[in-house]
Amino acid sequence: MAIDFTLAPEHEEIRRRVRAFIQETVIPAVPDGLPREEYLRVIFALRREAKEQGLWLPHMPREWGGMGLGHVELAMVQSEAAKTRLGPWVLNCAAPDEGNMHTLLHWGTDEQKERYLRPLLEGSQMSCFAMTEPEVAGSDPTLIRTHAVQDGDEWLINGHKWFISNARRASFAILIAKTEPDVPEGSRGGNTAFLIDLPQDGWHDVREVETMHGSTGHSEIVITDLRVPADRILGGRGNGHRLGQYRLGPARLAHCMRWISQAETALDMMVDRALNRYSHGSLLADKQGVQWLIADSAMELYQCKLMVLHAASKIDKGEDFRTEVSMAKHFVANSLNRIIDRSIQVHGALGYSTDIPLANMFQHARWARFADGADEIHQMRIAERVIAAYRDSGSTNAATGGLPL
Amino acid sequence: MAIDFTLAPEHEEIRRRVRAFIQETVIPAVPDGLPREEYLRVIFALRREAKEQGLWLPHMPREWGGMGLGHVELAMVQSEAAKTRLGPWVLNCAAPDEGNMHTLLHWGTDEQKERYLRPLLEGSQMSCFAMTEPEVAGSDPTLIRTHAVQDGDEWLINGHKWFISNARRASFAILIAKTEPDVPEGSRGGNTAFLIDLPQDGWHDVREVETMHGSTGHSEIVITDLRVPADRILGGRGNGHRLGQYRLGPARLAHCMRWISQAETALDMMVDRALNRYSHGSLLADKQGVQWLIADSAMELYQCKLMVLHAASKIDKGEDFRTEVSMAKHFVANSLNRIIDRSIQVHGALGYSTDIPLANMFQHARWARFADGADEIHQMRIAERVIAAYRDSGSTNAATGGLPL
Amino acid sequence: MAIDFTLAPEHEEIRRRVRAFIQETVIPAVPDGLPREEYLRVIFALRREAKEQGLWLPHMPREWGGMGLGHVELAMVQSEAAKTRLGPWVLNCAAPDEGNMHTLLHWGTDEQKERYLRPLLEGSQMSCFAMTEPEVAGSDPTLIRTHAVQDGDEWLINGHKWFISNARRASFAILIAKTEPDVPEGSRGGNTAFLIDLPQDGWHDVREVETMHGSTGHSEIVITDLRVPADRILGGRGNGHRLGQYRLGPARLAHCMRWISQAETALDMMVDRALNRYSHGSLLADKQGVQWLIADSAMELYQCKLMVLHAASKIDKGEDFRTEVSMAKHFVANSLNRIIDRSIQVHGALGYSTDIPLANMFQHARWARFADGADEIHQMRIAERVIAAYRDSGSTNAATGGLPL
Amino acid sequence: MAIDFTLAPEHEEIRRRVRAFIQETVIPAVPDGLPREEYLRVIFALRREAKEQGLWLPHMPREWGGMGLGHVELAMVQSEAAKTRLGPWVLNCAAPDEGNMHTLLHWGTDEQKERYLRPLLEGSQMSCFAMTEPEVAGSDPTLIRTHAVQDGDEWLINGHKWFISNARRASFAILIAKTEPDVPEGSRGGNTAFLIDLPQDGWHDVREVETMHGSTGHSEIVITDLRVPADRILGGRGNGHRLGQYRLGPARLAHCMRWISQAETALDMMVDRALNRYSHGSLLADKQGVQWLIADSAMELYQCKLMVLHAASKIDKGEDFRTEVSMAKHFVANSLNRIIDRSIQVHGALGYSTDIPLANMFQHARWARFADGADEIHQMRIAERVIAAYRDSGSTNAATGGLPL
Repeated sequence: MAIDFTLAPEHEEIRRRVRAFIQETVIPAVPDGLPREEYLRVIFALRREAKEQGLWLPHMPREWGGMGLGHVELAMVQSEAAKTRLGPWVLNCAAPDEGNMHTLLHWGTDEQKERYLRPLLEGSQMSCFAMTEPEVAGSDPTLIRTHAVQDGDEWLINGHKWFISNARRASFAILIAKTEPDVPEGSRGGNTAFLIDLPQDGWHDVREVETMHGSTGHSEIVITDLRVPADRILGGRGNGHRLGQYRLGPARLAHCMRWISQAETALDMMVDRALNRYSHGSLLADKQGVQWLIADSAMELYQCKLMVLHAASKIDKGEDFRTEVSMAKHFVANSLNRIIDRSIQVHGALGYSTDIPLANMFQHARWARFADGADEIHQMRIAERVIAAYRDSGSTNAATGGLPL
Repeated sequence: MAIDFTLAPEHEEIRRRVRAFIQETVIPAVPDGLPREEYLRVIFALRREAKEQGLWLPHMPREWGGMGLGHVELAMVQSEAAKTRLGPWVLNCAAPDEGNMHTLLHWGTDEQKERYLRPLLEGSQMSCFAMTEPEVAGSDPTLIRTHAVQDGDEWLINGHKWFISNARRASFAILIAKTEPDVPEGSRGGNTAFLIDLPQDGWHDVREVETMHGSTGHSEIVITDLRVPADRILGGRGNGHRLGQYRLGPARLAHCMRWISQAETALDMMVDRALNRYSHGSLLADKQGVQWLIADSAMELYQCKLMVLHAASKIDKGEDFRTEVSMAKHFVANSLNRIIDRSIQVHGALGYSTDIPLANMFQHARWARFADGADEIHQMRIAERVIAAYRDSGSTNAATGGLPL
Repeated sequence: MAIDFTLAPEHEEIRRRVRAFIQETVIPAVPDGLPREEYLRVIFALRREAKEQGLWLPHMPREWGGMGLGHVELAMVQSEAAKTRLGPWVLNCAAPDEGNMHTLLHWGTDEQKERYLRPLLEGSQMSCFAMTEPEVAGSDPTLIRTHAVQDGDEWLINGHKWFISNARRASFAILIAKTEPDVPEGSRGGNTAFLIDLPQDGWHDVREVETMHGSTGHSEIVITDLRVPADRILGGRGNGHRLGQYRLGPARLAHCMRWISQAETALDMMVDRALNRYSHGSLLADKQGVQWLIADSAMELYQCKLMVLHAASKIDKGEDFRTEVSMAKHFVANSLNRIIDRSIQVHGALGYSTDIPLANMFQHARWARFADGADEIHQMRIAERVIAAYRDSGSTNAATGGLPL
Repeated sequence: MAIDFTLAPEHEEIRRRVRAFIQETVIPAVPDGLPREEYLRVIFALRREAKEQGLWLPHMPREWGGMGLGHVELAMVQSEAAKTRLGPWVLNCAAPDEGNMHTLLHWGTDEQKERYLRPLLEGSQMSCFAMTEPEVAGSDPTLIRTHAVQDGDEWLINGHKWFISNARRASFAILIAKTEPDVPEGSRGGNTAFLIDLPQDGWHDVREVETMHGSTGHSEIVITDLRVPADRILGGRGNGHRLGQYRLGPARLAHCMRWISQAETALDMMVDRALNRYSHGSLLADKQGVQWLIADSAMELYQCKLMVLHAASKIDKGEDFRTEVSMAKHFVANSLNRIIDRSIQVHGALGYSTDIPLANMFQHARWARFADGADEIHQMRIAERVIAAYRDSGSTNAATGGLPL
């Protein structure tokens, strides 16, 4: 036990294998412009190959067919995988399935695990997570209006959800609904999670919400008199909020790992451009201001990496990781946006065109500041914990990483 | 070997001892407003006690009477010590003596070590480092104009220095002078370090430069026909620049450790005030904007700590630490200023008064953005190394910490 | 003559007429989702109506069929018109035709005015401006590689352009090409403007460059042995750079006027949302942090308006307006991006969706930081003029608006 | 009536006279390091000369011995005067007397004007304004605890004030005390203003609060059983809050005018340094990053000037100026801090020393973010008015200057 920032050799070996697989097998197999059908065929072939090579389910324990990695090791696997957007999908560690696997493993009954978790792990099914609603602030799940009423051995559910990613490909949903209408506002005990088989009567996928980055799988769902057997409650009645929060910690960090990979690509491109573009008497790379853009981006990316490694380490140690994950989520999401933005600026008009991937990355990155908790929620939570640390101990030290410094 | 963010128990034990000594012995012994003479008497008594307790020279190896700590362990000792401004002095690890000890240990001949290093370690002498000049940019030491000309067995030195901290208490100076006038501009081989006994003919301490935080020991020195024996060259002719750079790495990090301690104090005070001040219908701590100030400060402080631990770890491993130290120096100095500034704002007029220490901390903190390399120098160096990493390897990865992520 | 920030009553009357026409006639006539052909039919009908109502060519003198407004008055007309993206097109004051009209009016021969300017003014033709090239920095037109060689009574042109807006609808282009290959780098005398009839042999519109906001009319052009008669030079040989700069002043300001209108819409939406969204115990509008977003946006928008009015006033007075226009262009473009970004954040996931126009505005707004001079160019020019003012007069006063303060 | 940014010739003439008087008479008369007694003698001689030259009381109407200037004209007079810190004092338009004169002129009875206003105008007396208290947020005057209880023909006052500028030189104070203890929290009708002759029993000036910029005249006052005749109420019972607010509008703007002058000095110095300092291969003025610092500073200073002119123009027209003054106060105070900070950075260690005035300006400037309303108060007020404008009219337009754009 002593401060160390290096990977064990066996994990470094895994990192090299993932990198090789992504760079040499996955990326060449999926050229731009592949027709949709062919694209899917290739992906599924790649998934089989990943499974055979043992690069499958990096986030799951060995006894469930996973690679048995801790979150620190996972950080580097996710990051290597995310060098292409479909990498995590090929390794079967992509959102939202990844978070749902964690959730089912932790909260599911044996029967639920067999029925819902098993096919996800095998890659034969996909899933979605249905919490966000258009009428109320997604940042405050205590306000959820979708409600479930017990009716004999069943629950009758009505409500309205949106931004439900992956809904059209999912074989089931984890749905959060209010079951305890009388809890006071702000209470966290009012919601319950349900496992919903899809497709199903009462679950109406009315459209895919179109966004800044196109229309790729965020559904709006109207739920009308949907009936679910009582044994489809996941994690116990009234535990919907806790379950959502439990799920989000590692899921948020997995996002960060993938965003770091994107940010690194953007920085690499920024430097490449600066080394090749000449204007007003010198290369961009020789200009003080452009150097500031590069230095600021490098510093932020460095901080992102340290934060993710530390938060992952806290999860692995079974310590309270919520403040560290909130800080990482907030900072990485914002850094990602800033670094891509600077890279676009250094590229000039080319960066605004779709001839290079930055424009597309920029449009996707804006989502990161909402995904799994808007900026403002994380800032509030961080502040609350800093204040609580000071109240409890007379020092904020415990809320700035609890580090020996 | 595996990523870990915790201290070994024996180091945690040292940390606790330093903390206890600072909080229970040092701070109570030096109340505000002590007369100068009494103040010095108390300090020297405390230094003797620190020595007896084995809390002396934390940055030096055991064979030289130090605590034999690595830089990671040093981080927490410096940080605990800096909870009071005179803590590092009591432990005999304060600038500029601390950096001069490193320099002499690494570059000195055996004779130089006996004559100059030994009394520093024993605490019987103090020293200064004379590089900065008023006429040329301190950020570009290749421009130094103070020059030494060989004259038989001696060197004859003329020049002009300022911001030479500690000069009036020093028994000797490490002086940087140009000895090779013909090297081309930008070349790093033109300067040489000399050991200068003080006081001495030719060394004129013309005034203490007054600064934003008062007039506390930064001297302006006019050097006129100062004669030094040839064996007082430290580190070899033409090595003045390299010596200065070598010295600055750990010295910069030691600054960071102390600044983190100050920033934590400012954050603690910010939260305390927010919990006790009521305005426009609620406590400040309950207002979203004030929470943002707290959350941003906590995040930055957390990042500062991670960066310093990582850079210290690189020094301990004998790896190239320059980029990491530049990033830490730049970011910690700026965070310190921002966090103190926010804390002042949350305190309102009280924060601007000297009734509480924030105003004084603010005036000192501004110096951090120049000390041991202005912001702009570090940004330039970071950018250069990011660019070089990309040029060498096709990726910026090595310049964002070289982490496994 | 005395400081005054109000419009003359006759101009206020024009503003009200433009507003009424845009709000009551134009916006209702063009519902979302109109088929392309029908859309164009409606636009041209609206243009006829604008012409009949005398709301046509606000930026042109009366003797050329325009409204004879100064730039100050124009500011409010452009701003009212831009409340819908097609407003400026309906009033025939949209880029790039608007800038080309200014250019032809100022630099064209009588014959060129009859042949090229007249049909633009009548609205029977459109035009484009071809300067930007993919191979060299658009921010430094002295680097242009497209070159024209004299061959008897003709010029023979070869080169490569891109981001040529409106090219596929244009009846002619103003093309900038290098005619003086021997001028030293950085010299502004190497380029010449040519009037090119379109379509034409040698002008190959190879594709529309796709951008972050879709693919709407920015062409890439390969020019191969294009022949132009010598009398199609516009503004004289070697004057291409001056002509481009002259054109850009008012064109940049016209952009600002339209951007201000967009920014105001984004701020209106931000406030509307804040008044209607409840989260964590209160309306967003009651939270301190959200109030900061609103206050900062309002302040920036206020500054944008003051800057544009002042720069327009300088143009109207025939004074040197370059610094003021650079400042306005830079600040308004960046404020636009920030205000839209904040408005999106306040809207949460809805703001990221295309259900409301913010996402689309965000994607367009990013272009503003390149259009008619990237941020970095304007910063350089502003700094140069501040430095020059100080050099000339010992004070920077003349470069901060030359105001009586 | 038409938009115009120039001064009338007669006012330009006044500006030139003020500038000449300040530059040629005042500045040379007060060299650094004048002994205190001699310093005061010179000041009073200069005040007499200003009075004789008709450069006296620029903010007061002619019938009261002033120059009869509007606020727009005043902007340039204050700005010219503030090129030296004692300029406004010499012209008798310095805080807090200046605000107290406005207040007495507007709210005083004839008798109060003769007794209190007249000697201020003549320059034979000085005054202070006593509102801020240490125990409650200065930003929320409804919380004031100093209270006055009626006792026959007198009021009996007890309480505690601090940061009462000028108290030791004042012949009287305008004191704000709570007279209506039963008004609900947040109500603005609880306070009353009193005219207090000084010195007086019950008014204990216990110390000068020391601040970041030294100890220059901000007193802490303990008020114990102070008795005031009932006819010393100023502006009517319960009007203390309104009176304070009325006073603050023009007083805040007068601060801005003086701060702009300071900011311009800092920018001038920044450019001067950049033109004379060489580092790493070029002058600072030729480096892109330093140019950004210059350009950003110039842009902000330009915006400050436009905002102050516009807000002054609204006061002169008798329009509601509160939003514009809040925006100007907030932005100018923050710009002042940023511009001085950048100038210090460009000066390096010299900027941190007191060899040049930047360090001192920096320490004073920090106060600007609290003076006459902390940043956070102005942000809240601006947001409230933006929200109200939208609520009332469906557009935020009226709250971004109400400009024709």
